[in-house]
Amino acid sequence: MPGPIQSIERAAAILRLLARGSGRLGVGEIAESLELAKGTAHGILRTLQGVGFVEQDHDTGKYQLGAALLHLGTSYLDVNELRSRAINWADALAARSGEAVRIGAPLEGRVLVVHHVFRPDDSLQTLDVGTLLPLHATALGKILLAYDADLLSSLRRTEPETYTRRTLVSPVLLKRALAKVREAGWACENGEMVPGEAGIAAPIRGHGGIVVGAIGVTGPAERLCDSGGEPDPRLLNQVRDAARAVSRDLGASR
Amino acid sequence: MPGPIQSIERAAAILRLLARGSGRLGVGEIAESLELAKGTAHGILRTLQGVGFVEQDHDTGKYQLGAALLHLGTSYLDVNELRSRAINWADALAARSGEAVRIGAPLEGRVLVVHHVFRPDDSLQTLDVGTLLPLHATALGKILLAYDADLLSSLRRTEPETYTRRTLVSPVLLKRALAKVREAGWACENGEMVPGEAGIAAPIRGHGGIVVGAIGVTGPAERLCDSGGEPDPRLLNQVRDAARAVSRDLGASR
Repeated sequence: MPGPIQSIERAAAILRLLARGSGRLGVGEIAESLELAKGTAHGILRTLQGVGFVEQDHDTGKYQLGAALLHLGTSYLDVNELRSRAINWADALAARSGEAVRIGAPLEGRVLVVHHVFRPDDSLQTLDVGTLLPLHATALGKILLAYDADLLSSLRRTEPETYTRRTLVSPVLLKRALAKVREAGWACENGEMVPGEAGIAAPIRGHGGIVVGAIGVTGPAERLCDSGGEPDPRLLNQVRDAARAVSRDLGASR
Repeated sequence: MPGPIQSIERAAAILRLLARGSGRLGVGEIAESLELAKGTAHGILRTLQGVGFVEQDHDTGKYQLGAALLHLGTSYLDVNELRSRAINWADALAARSGEAVRIGAPLEGRVLVVHHVFRPDDSLQTLDVGTLLPLHATALGKILLAYDADLLSSLRRTEPETYTRRTLVSPVLLKRALAKVREAGWACENGEMVPGEAGIAAPIRGHGGIVVGAIGVTGPAERLCDSGGEPDPRLLNQVRDAARAVSRDLGASR
């Protein structure tokens, strides 16, 4: 069987590179980052520009991601079964809990937010859909790590970032936390990514009971956790009920 | 100068094909739609799968868009200058008008919604960001058509869809409506896409005064228009003020 097509892989690498950092790069910077000849990078960029996947700034000549990707990205959401099965349950969870709800799935060693329901109050909130969150510092991520050995070993090959004093970066502590997640069937995060913010999450299972994602609430630590850092029992039950309902709709027991 | 790279163009065509219709296609259907040999289509699909741009359904073997595109799509929003300059003005317009606000830019002969602020009430609304709207049946689209001759001639090569009895599909009527838009500096749509729903939009101008997008409100026709179908003067002023403010921030007068 023939191998992957190099020019498509390189094009994808350029797009991923542009999705990082400031988002605007010159052809020289792109060629250097990906160890390509400048002419090669230029040929790929011109083709990507032709199909609307990158745009070139008139003034600086730098390249950035193009508008056609936005439409493809939201079209992905329309076919994502996890999201479509979970939307109603996520709305109900936000209404019952009074907290923001997010649904995550693994992507490139992080948690991709595929759905986000705002906290049901009038505060200004930013949509997190499409954002990549760290696995080790979020409740959603701990769920994904706890049930996916490959994901955990890929995390171990990197150096997990320290966000706050509480972030679990020690392999021993993380391993212990994940064993507790598997035993309890839920995960909790208390000020491990942003001081004062907490999260509670539970696994979403697909066909055959395989964990395919996680659903959880996030909000101020004082509302989500007690003084000992344990999650509020009422919220925890609501999160677990929602996770079970989505799993049932995804055919977890079939 | 060498031409575009064929395998990348074909990969982009496959992704666009998957973004249409049901979103799930077999390799045979893809090969047939794009007039490719089945082996060629398969090689591209396997490469796209390797980079996370497509996913294959375990049960049916069909292909669909992949999660990596969602992250690229939302990363595009982060670098989109029109959107980043317009966000605050769009929030203010929604708050003042009490209606939903959308910002659009042209993509592939349609209006790409790059920002959407929900109507400030508690009703259930669906985020339209990333959606493609028709040019001829929306106020945003009429603005883009009125100021872009290329866009108008590309529309004339297609057969504009009839959404309601009021949709402007006749070239003569559309031409007359667009001349009125240019003269007035705003566009209005009254039940032309969905019966009973209306829209008011104004142009957003970038460097040198070139129209780069449109901002507008949508809502029930009885709130947006008077009995003669003319837009409510207060709402119209609010939309035009917002458009001027965004244009100023984008350097329209520089």
